[in-house]
Amino acid sequence: MRVRILVSLKASVLDPQGQAVRNALHTLGYKAVEDVRQGKVFEVDLAGLSRDEAARLVPEIAHKVLANPIIETYAWEILEE
Amino acid sequence: MRVRILVSLKASVLDPQGQAVRNALHTLGYKAVEDVRQGKVFEVDLAGLSRDEAARLVPEIAHKVLANPIIETYAWEILEE
Repeated sequence: MRVRILVSLKASVLDPQGQAVRNALHTLGYKAVEDVRQGKVFEVDLAGLSRDEAARLVPEIAHKVLANPIIETYAWEILEE
Repeated sequence: MRVRILVSLKASVLDPQGQAVRNALHTLGYKAVEDVRQGKVFEVDLAGLSRDEAARLVPEIAHKVLANPIIETYAWEILEE
């Protein structure tokens, strides 16, 4: 099974990396770009797990390892069974 | 309009960051994790663009700024009109 986990900064947390990208895009003339938030994406292959087992495992590893729950949130989805 | 752009390393490119995450997860006992690939995600707010204009703009900024087309690929989707 392959899952995708998106980790992004909470809305209340400043994102200097996203701001730098936004500013770079403005400098290049892309004025339609109002805001950019940058995050991380993990595509994870899991072996021999049922859907239910994945639904327990993925939040656990996201919370413990992939995201910093103080400043980040995550979302996940199954890409392939 | 809000779009999400996912930037990931091409399958043929080594991903040491993803490997480090996989190894960390194994060390913690998550043996079901077979492989991890890490990428970037950008959530971009665009002002005053039609769907067609976004469909021209987003690939352009992804190709020129957000991704390195030599080693990375991207995918994008509209999150909000």
